[in-house]
Amino acid sequence: MSNRESAIKYAHDNRERYLTDLKDFLSIKTVSTDPDHKADMEKGAEWVANKLKAIGINKVEVMPTGGHPVVYCEYLEAGDDAPTMVIYGHYDVQPVEPLDLWESDPFAGTERDENLYARGASDMKAQVLASINAVEALMQNGGLGVNIKFLIEGEEEIGSPNLDTFIEKNKDLLACDFALNPDAGMLGPDTPTITYALRGLAYFEVHVEGPDHDLHSGIYGGSVRNPVNELARLIGGMMDENGHITLPGYYDSVRDLDDEERAELARLPVDDAFILENTGAPAVWGEAGYSSVERVGARPTLDVNGIYAGFIGEGSKTVLPSKGFAKISMRLVPDQNPDEVHKQLEQYMQENANPTVKWEVRALTGGDPSISDRNSRWVQSLAKAQEEVWGVRPVFKREGGSVPVVAQMQQLLGVDSVLCGYGLPDDNLHAPNEKLHLPTWYRGNDAFIHMLFNLAE
Amino acid sequence: MSNRESAIKYAHDNRERYLTDLKDFLSIKTVSTDPDHKADMEKGAEWVANKLKAIGINKVEVMPTGGHPVVYCEYLEAGDDAPTMVIYGHYDVQPVEPLDLWESDPFAGTERDENLYARGASDMKAQVLASINAVEALMQNGGLGVNIKFLIEGEEEIGSPNLDTFIEKNKDLLACDFALNPDAGMLGPDTPTITYALRGLAYFEVHVEGPDHDLHSGIYGGSVRNPVNELARLIGGMMDENGHITLPGYYDSVRDLDDEERAELARLPVDDAFILENTGAPAVWGEAGYSSVERVGARPTLDVNGIYAGFIGEGSKTVLPSKGFAKISMRLVPDQNPDEVHKQLEQYMQENANPTVKWEVRALTGGDPSISDRNSRWVQSLAKAQEEVWGVRPVFKREGGSVPVVAQMQQLLGVDSVLCGYGLPDDNLHAPNEKLHLPTWYRGNDAFIHMLFNLAE
Repeated sequence: MSNRESAIKYAHDNRERYLTDLKDFLSIKTVSTDPDHKADMEKGAEWVANKLKAIGINKVEVMPTGGHPVVYCEYLEAGDDAPTMVIYGHYDVQPVEPLDLWESDPFAGTERDENLYARGASDMKAQVLASINAVEALMQNGGLGVNIKFLIEGEEEIGSPNLDTFIEKNKDLLACDFALNPDAGMLGPDTPTITYALRGLAYFEVHVEGPDHDLHSGIYGGSVRNPVNELARLIGGMMDENGHITLPGYYDSVRDLDDEERAELARLPVDDAFILENTGAPAVWGEAGYSSVERVGARPTLDVNGIYAGFIGEGSKTVLPSKGFAKISMRLVPDQNPDEVHKQLEQYMQENANPTVKWEVRALTGGDPSISDRNSRWVQSLAKAQEEVWGVRPVFKREGGSVPVVAQMQQLLGVDSVLCGYGLPDDNLHAPNEKLHLPTWYRGNDAFIHMLFNLAE
Repeated sequence: MSNRESAIKYAHDNRERYLTDLKDFLSIKTVSTDPDHKADMEKGAEWVANKLKAIGINKVEVMPTGGHPVVYCEYLEAGDDAPTMVIYGHYDVQPVEPLDLWESDPFAGTERDENLYARGASDMKAQVLASINAVEALMQNGGLGVNIKFLIEGEEEIGSPNLDTFIEKNKDLLACDFALNPDAGMLGPDTPTITYALRGLAYFEVHVEGPDHDLHSGIYGGSVRNPVNELARLIGGMMDENGHITLPGYYDSVRDLDDEERAELARLPVDDAFILENTGAPAVWGEAGYSSVERVGARPTLDVNGIYAGFIGEGSKTVLPSKGFAKISMRLVPDQNPDEVHKQLEQYMQENANPTVKWEVRALTGGDPSISDRNSRWVQSLAKAQEEVWGVRPVFKREGGSVPVVAQMQQLLGVDSVLCGYGLPDDNLHAPNEKLHLPTWYRGNDAFIHMLFNLAE
């Protein structure tokens, strides 16, 4: 029996213990947003640290941050020639309220049918444990041919406010060839999924001002430019009737989709009916020439997130408002970046704003998009592992949202992330009755084992 | 000495008494918005009624309404062949707060230089009294050749909520050939002014809805039409780069300005510098091909009065809003009307709204525009009177705002109004230190006398 075969057998033989361990981990109330759970957060970090020590990793540390601690460990015995991987995860969970909608104790870990119900079961204690279990299986069956560092934080559910500082401070410690981030999920129990790209974000406020005080729309209406009409016109002009964004040069650094990638994305089991059902929109709509999956994953957007001006109460006030503003954000795709689109937005305003109004663009937040080479050794090691377990090629997904840690690792450590995870779309993340599909989770344990072997080949 | 000459002499001889009467009238605290002044309101109405009786009018009534009473009187002894005029006015005044900014007691009527300072001095107790004084001067010097009805309300400063019902109920009583409304003003002490047109109003809310709940802009951004981007685009498209409103047929019933009227309007001492100073706007702007005076008085508008959607708090929330709305109103000119532009707005939305969003137009309030023939006997009787007093032809003004009573009289009584008044732009209407320029007021008394004679010729 090869080491790989014996490691898989070890994992199968230990499934009952894996489940017991998971229930134990889930019983710790690591609700990061609630100060009452501060002691639980420390207990959760200790639980992870002890678990890592128990599987035989010597260098394990619970490291303080400005908020909840980070668990760090490293296993570098594979040697300088072997690749080094950071496994990212978080031990914190969402609050459980409203409690009365839970069918069982959210911290008890209750099995019903093939599922385990508990807060954090899917997001993401089971995912953290699956990666630890895989390392354990290799340690017990011939050792690892890859160097491993774990970075398990306790503040993901509150926006990771201290993580960038932590990574910046510990750049050398975290040096690696790539990161594995099992905080994504699968599109279905029979659809192994790899998320290889995330959109970035550039968030602005656009302010427009005309007269220096609100005017009577009868006395002055028609004689000065209404800044709100102007704001609306400017926003309206930022996109043409084909859904193309008109900011100058906006698509210059957008990577085109090639035929191969479009074919991959077409395999995703997401169709327009899915979008209609989940949004309640009367119809889908977007950039001409692209499918909905491509629009969300691989094409940039420009959305008004909020707009305000003048009188918005009941009834009619005949005011010509002095000013108005809109919050406008763009989801970015490789190789756009927030600074670049900021300049493009400024240029658009310079070129298009009526000179009879004043305007200002304020940049609020931003984050780079990220993409990993689907043909890299790292992605392929995971793809092959998933195919070995499920018997089908995984689908490759671009995520429309942003995962800040992925962009931070790209910027601060210079590495790509491979995103995966063994949660399912109906796992009730952040909602009552969060659950984990146990057969899928067990397969996920196996997939990580195969990945570790694949990396060493 | 002709009756006209002796009436003018009578007015000059009685200036001191006119001033004493005015101060007496001003001392009554007729603040219509304040329930504490209810007794003062009744006292004010009584004061007007007694004054009318005192000059010799027999039929004077204080008539109840749903709010403050109306003073009505009629003098019909000029006979069936003579014209009948309704003189409109109001005895209520604005609140006086902030009191500490007044340099003298707002109800004391204090003379400084050539001005009388008091709340209501210009708006409009002096104007009401000037018209009564003129009638008195004729009664004392050969009688009136015109039939007169006074309609003096007590709720103008709170939007005349009961006036339309009152007029509707008393249509026969108020039957007349035209109305004189001295609640307008002059553009300067040497610039007698006649306002012969008012813009109407059509006020709407436009609602646009896309998804049936707010969406995550990362997960769905790009796949459904953002209803706020769409709302902005629709508003932006309602006006072209020349300031022309694009609603279908919008200008079809707009009366063109002929050369004669444009020449009249060009005489108005209002220039772009005046607009810049009073608005603080960086520049004037409006419909191409028209002056600012023409844009405000004789051309219709389309102004966003308010707009709201999504997240407008501090910071960045990456929401794709489910819906948004704007308050949009149009100032209308003859012969537009609110129903017509409502249909045009609906048609614009039907033709332009992206079919992937739902929309609704809600009509809030509306009022017809009005215009009086500058060459009518009524307008000319006033124009000639003003020229007789000031020695210069009056300027003819179109007012950009709306005076609801003018449209109501047009609709309910079928008569035009002639608007004038002897207040000045720096009279601090609705503000502390309201004042009346006494020499201008005395000339106004004389002008009304001349008008009454002119009408009888």
